[in-house]
Amino acid sequence: MVLRPRNKRSKTSEVADEADSAIASGHVTRQGGRSWTLSAERRVDYDVALVDRIFDLANPTLASSVVAGRSDKARRFVVLDRNIDYLYGQSMRAYFAHYEVACEYLSLEVSEQRKTMESVMRIVHALDRFGIERHDPIVAIGGGVLLDIAGLAASLYRRATPHIRIPTTLVGLVDAGIGVKTGVNHDQHKNCLGSYHPPRSVLVDRTFLATLDRRQLSNGLAEILKLAIVSDRPLFDLLERHGRLLLDERLQGRQGETGDLVALEVLERAISGMLGELSGNLWETSLERLVDFGHSISPLIEMLTLPELLHGEAVALDMALFVIVSHQREMISSTNRDRVLRLIRELELPLVHPVLRDVSVLRRALAETTRHRAGLARLPIPLEIGSVCFVNDVSEDELLIAAKELRELGGYDA
Amino acid sequence: MVLRPRNKRSKTSEVADEADSAIASGHVTRQGGRSWTLSAERRVDYDVALVDRIFDLANPTLASSVVAGRSDKARRFVVLDRNIDYLYGQSMRAYFAHYEVACEYLSLEVSEQRKTMESVMRIVHALDRFGIERHDPIVAIGGGVLLDIAGLAASLYRRATPHIRIPTTLVGLVDAGIGVKTGVNHDQHKNCLGSYHPPRSVLVDRTFLATLDRRQLSNGLAEILKLAIVSDRPLFDLLERHGRLLLDERLQGRQGETGDLVALEVLERAISGMLGELSGNLWETSLERLVDFGHSISPLIEMLTLPELLHGEAVALDMALFVIVSHQREMISSTNRDRVLRLIRELELPLVHPVLRDVSVLRRALAETTRHRAGLARLPIPLEIGSVCFVNDVSEDELLIAAKELRELGGYDA
Ligand SMILES: NC(=O)c1ccc[n+]([C@@H]2O[C@H](COP(=O)([O-])OP(=O)(O)OC[C@H]3O[C@@H](n4cnc5c(N)ncnc54)[C@H](O)[C@@H]3O)[C@@H](O)[C@H]2O)c1
Ligand SMILES: NC(=O)c1ccc[n+]([C@@H]2O[C@H](COP(=O)([O-])OP(=O)(O)OC[C@H]3O[C@@H](n4cnc5c(N)ncnc54)[C@H](O)[C@@H]3O)[C@@H](O)[C@H]2O)c1
Repeated sequence: MVLRPRNKRSKTSEVADEADSAIASGHVTRQGGRSWTLSAERRVDYDVALVDRIFDLANPTLASSVVAGRSDKARRFVVLDRNIDYLYGQSMRAYFAHYEVACEYLSLEVSEQRKTMESVMRIVHALDRFGIERHDPIVAIGGGVLLDIAGLAASLYRRATPHIRIPTTLVGLVDAGIGVKTGVNHDQHKNCLGSYHPPRSVLVDRTFLATLDRRQLSNGLAEILKLAIVSDRPLFDLLERHGRLLLDERLQGRQGETGDLVALEVLERAISGMLGELSGNLWETSLERLVDFGHSISPLIEMLTLPELLHGEAVALDMALFVIVSHQREMISSTNRDRVLRLIRELELPLVHPVLRDVSVLRRALAETTRHRAGLARLPIPLEIGSVCFVNDVSEDELLIAAKELRELGGYDA
Repeated sequence: MVLRPRNKRSKTSEVADEADSAIASGHVTRQGGRSWTLSAERRVDYDVALVDRIFDLANPTLASSVVAGRSDKARRFVVLDRNIDYLYGQSMRAYFAHYEVACEYLSLEVSEQRKTMESVMRIVHALDRFGIERHDPIVAIGGGVLLDIAGLAASLYRRATPHIRIPTTLVGLVDAGIGVKTGVNHDQHKNCLGSYHPPRSVLVDRTFLATLDRRQLSNGLAEILKLAIVSDRPLFDLLERHGRLLLDERLQGRQGETGDLVALEVLERAISGMLGELSGNLWETSLERLVDFGHSISPLIEMLTLPELLHGEAVALDMALFVIVSHQREMISSTNRDRVLRLIRELELPLVHPVLRDVSVLRRALAETTRHRAGLARLPIPLEIGSVCFVNDVSEDELLIAAKELRELGGYDA
């Protein structure tokens, strides 16, 4: 019999998480007779590692992340994007069999339209049937959509089941896969329901990009470009010089040394920059987020045009529009404005769209963003390349004029 | 134009929450070339206050909590238990009208069987139509069921919408209403889906208990008794001496000074003790929780017998059973065993139930708890009154024998 007499905890105490090496502590202060303040702190840590070819039998990284110290026979629940199952299912199964991890696989057909609570509940049902043990991590493998849905299922199940994230798209590698946000859409509101649920760890394997559509790569480059514009000028320069090569080579560095070094440097800068931005504001306690550049009106645009525009494409439209606003307000120079617009096109992303002709859409988009940011628009506007300021007073008319100028500049008829 | 040039944040930064005066900070460490560790900390504070008659027009506490510093005209979304609406809806509406808080009311018929994700989604739809602004709190008024559902809706909406909790049952006042857990049931798993979502504040108004069923009061006293057994012997003594009076008077202290002082002392001790237990382990990073006493096999028992047993009644069965186990293991004296059993009856709670004759139910309950507690049962067993130890090796047969002894002791035929 295991008998462990336990002293009562003192009013301030600290406990270590057996699962996630997270630390929490707290205490209660009595204010007068009939009022208390509870204060608690929590620390979260997780690792993000660039690892090539995670399903290579010679590479033990994935197996050891997934089993993480447990000596007994591991059973794991793996939820993955059906396309990943088609492309990599065989080597994945061979890998886990080789390392004796008994997995149950749930392969989901996902899309932005199916990014809903119903999809989350499908995972929940399967988790339940599987009988997952508390603190055993779910393994999620796929693009941003799969990771967002699976992350929400994990976060809801028993109020927090750990998860390991393995992104397979460029958006996933540099953004959706490495942060803590989960989410699904609700009605026309993008990511309206979700949670902040830190992964236990993230494995970033860029060899997945070898099978990704070129359009999906552009989509991911949009998020990298966003980061470059708000905070990393050298990254912008790299994209200007090598953007097309990165697209052509799917960041696999086929042209030997040079291409490979560039692809790695872009990924490393993007991941470092993104993690740096996230870390200080992991739970979005501040609503002035540099990384919201490109995300001012794009959430509504993306939802209204579904399934026409990809997330990064809507972000590109938004970035182009606000670069024009910045120039009209004499904040960014015309040289830099044109560099940004040229690079958006170079990366095969759109600059204009007919929906931007509709002033009521622009009004609604601004209103929703303002509600979402607690009454102030807090629109990030590039000052120059690598820095940003926040403004609250952009009107739908100003955006309408900017959209018109954008069309004229490019000679577009959208 | 509001123009606020923003310097890039340094890699370590701290931001204050504009809404909840929560604090978060974090940083990224680069480990070698291709690996990062993100570390972040977050602090949470909330107040719990005992306030009588919150809808009294002369009492500004509720209005100021709900508006919290906002000078502009407040619009608030209030979700409440339909029974509370019947009983208090008129004075509540008069109150908010008096203080010029424009409220939209969603009055929900709730029950343990309807404690589901569908109910959460009903609140989400209504929140969406209302167009709630980020950082504006939802006001939730009701028993544990309403608070758990509304808390989950709040936590999902925009990944965390603040909420103010106003418990109206005894379980709510001393337990469900003052912690951070939210949840709904899934299949036969109690609170299988949920989150940790600290309220912005909690107002504890015991005058709500004046309209509560006597059985619901007993139900709440079960949770207070649990706390007394694991950590507060003087509270146990108070319940022994005045339990029946508390029930008769619905904690309103009708017998003047003395009764009132007892009711208040019981509530204060229960709230203090509960907050103390919660604060050191707010996110349940440790799975050895004193307050899990009475919650070892009761979650399954409650779900299997729905709607027969109330939560606190299932907790009472569980406590009685494990007190017998403790005595059989020579941990608790027969005097104290009998005091506990007698007090359970005195509080009009059940000691035995036919479902405890079924060894397969006991087996399943232990297995689910073990899975839920990461592979170890971590069953809290009272050593004496006011202290507890954790054991991992209780079998279904041991429970079966204990249930039999319990029946014989009490001469019950259940
Ligand atoms: N949580 C966050 O912080 C965050 C950040 C950014 C974006 N997002 C979300 O991410 C989503 C977009 O993610 P996405 O761009 O990865 O799209 P996606 O997940 O829809 O994937 C795009 C397509 O590529 C397929 N695919 C995935 N990996 C592949 C591979 N290696 N080879 C071939 N095909 C592959 C998918 O099946 C899908 O058809 C949006 O819903 C967005 O809201 C979330
Ligand atoms: N989140 C937590 O930490 C936590 C802790 C303990 C219990 N819980 C949950 O709480 C739930 C039980 O809560 P409960 O016991 O409050 O039950 P409940 O919410 O079902 O309320 C009991 C009944 O009393 C009615 N009622 C509520 N207030 C009333 C009043 N003032 N006057 C008259 N009638 C009133 C309700 O309409 C309901 O019919 C369970 O689902 C349990 O899982 C949660």
